[in-house]
Amino acid sequence: MRFELYYWPGIPGRGEFVRLALEEGEADYLDVGQSPELGAEEVASRLSDPEVAQPPFAPPYLKADGIVISHVANILQYLGPRLGLAPEDEGQRYWLHGLQLTMTDFVAEIHDVHHPIGVGLYYDDQREEALRRSEQFRQERLPKFLTYFEQVLARNPDGHGWLVGDSLTYADLSLFHILSGLRYAFPQAMQRFEPDFPLLGGLVSRVVERPNIKAYLQSERRQEFNEQGLFRHYPELDG
Amino acid sequence: MRFELYYWPGIPGRGEFVRLALEEGEADYLDVGQSPELGAEEVASRLSDPEVAQPPFAPPYLKADGIVISHVANILQYLGPRLGLAPEDEGQRYWLHGLQLTMTDFVAEIHDVHHPIGVGLYYDDQREEALRRSEQFRQERLPKFLTYFEQVLARNPDGHGWLVGDSLTYADLSLFHILSGLRYAFPQAMQRFEPDFPLLGGLVSRVVERPNIKAYLQSERRQEFNEQGLFRHYPELDG
Repeated sequence: MRFELYYWPGIPGRGEFVRLALEEGEADYLDVGQSPELGAEEVASRLSDPEVAQPPFAPPYLKADGIVISHVANILQYLGPRLGLAPEDEGQRYWLHGLQLTMTDFVAEIHDVHHPIGVGLYYDDQREEALRRSEQFRQERLPKFLTYFEQVLARNPDGHGWLVGDSLTYADLSLFHILSGLRYAFPQAMQRFEPDFPLLGGLVSRVVERPNIKAYLQSERRQEFNEQGLFRHYPELDG
Repeated sequence: MRFELYYWPGIPGRGEFVRLALEEGEADYLDVGQSPELGAEEVASRLSDPEVAQPPFAPPYLKADGIVISHVANILQYLGPRLGLAPEDEGQRYWLHGLQLTMTDFVAEIHDVHHPIGVGLYYDDQREEALRRSEQFRQERLPKFLTYFEQVLARNPDGHGWLVGDSLTYADLSLFHILSGLRYAFPQAMQRFEPDFPLLGGLVSRVVERPNIKAYLQSERRQEFNEQGLFRHYPELDG
């Protein structure tokens, strides 16, 4: 099956969670936003076309087999079983999806550190509030989420390597991306925290060594973190 | 099947999205947080018990048939087909879940209007920032989300009554709750907006007339909105 991923070009953004699953699963896919002939205009068209009966609220969305699926966690839940990135058991799938939704919340909080007042304003227009929010984030929220995912790894009855079961799922790929983004955005804070979270560090190391992920990270398909995306490195927010 | 809902007592909160589905679907359920013998302590126990292999990050979570499901959208996706609140078609179910996840994002934004700096601080300690965020919210985000859901209702090929297909789903119940909460929290802003969103108003009217919902709203099981929950009425944030 051929998948079409619709997401803005120029940033890894939320689309990256989907790309990592498609790449690890060796899926045949078109990254519409990064395609020179299509690009951002094509991504935007479905959002604003009054003829579309079921418009996504925002990218990313995925076209597959005649249906359109929006929201990262929803897309991953669809792709997981099809790409060998989800467990067989139904109960485990609900647990996996719940973990992904906790990451959805985490990512929204990370984003709002640099945009605490509104997405419609520039960072510079909410820098004072961002400074204050970043302090709360580094002191309260960041360690809370890291502690949670470290615990999930530690308590997995099938071993300490992956979040769910004894093999990699899409949630491991997403957690890898979040941790990579946090290292980029908050290098000092993460350097202080990482010794306390050895299982998280181990997960990152294992994911980057997956042959498909390794090849992807070295390819031109991989876009660098930058100050337009979710994970932004503003040194003043790193304490 | 008997369901157990775990959520903090004293506020409708995120638990209310689950309650509405359970009530409309005439489910046999125990609201653990509101049970006098159990209450908040019982809700908290699973979160902090080191023996729990798969701890939820936060309530609400649901116990059903030997599994534990966390996150509103995940719980509703589980309950939907079991309570007659989801369509049969798989593609339509992904669309429904995507709508629910858009509501998850909307609710997080509504919450952060009164908590733009951090959940660990009181409202009074972030009142200035909240004033600024509320302006952005009322001018940009609130009309954007309302416009989106009005469009979804208008474009539904099966009629203009419900979000998905030709009968009520869990997403209609959730949208009803969000609109009720917004009327409580932002009465002036909503009064200005509502004439432009007749289909949203129609949905609220139709949901409150459902016999099971009507009975629930008049029962003692229904908790009032208040200034501890997601939807808070602080007149200064209403413009």
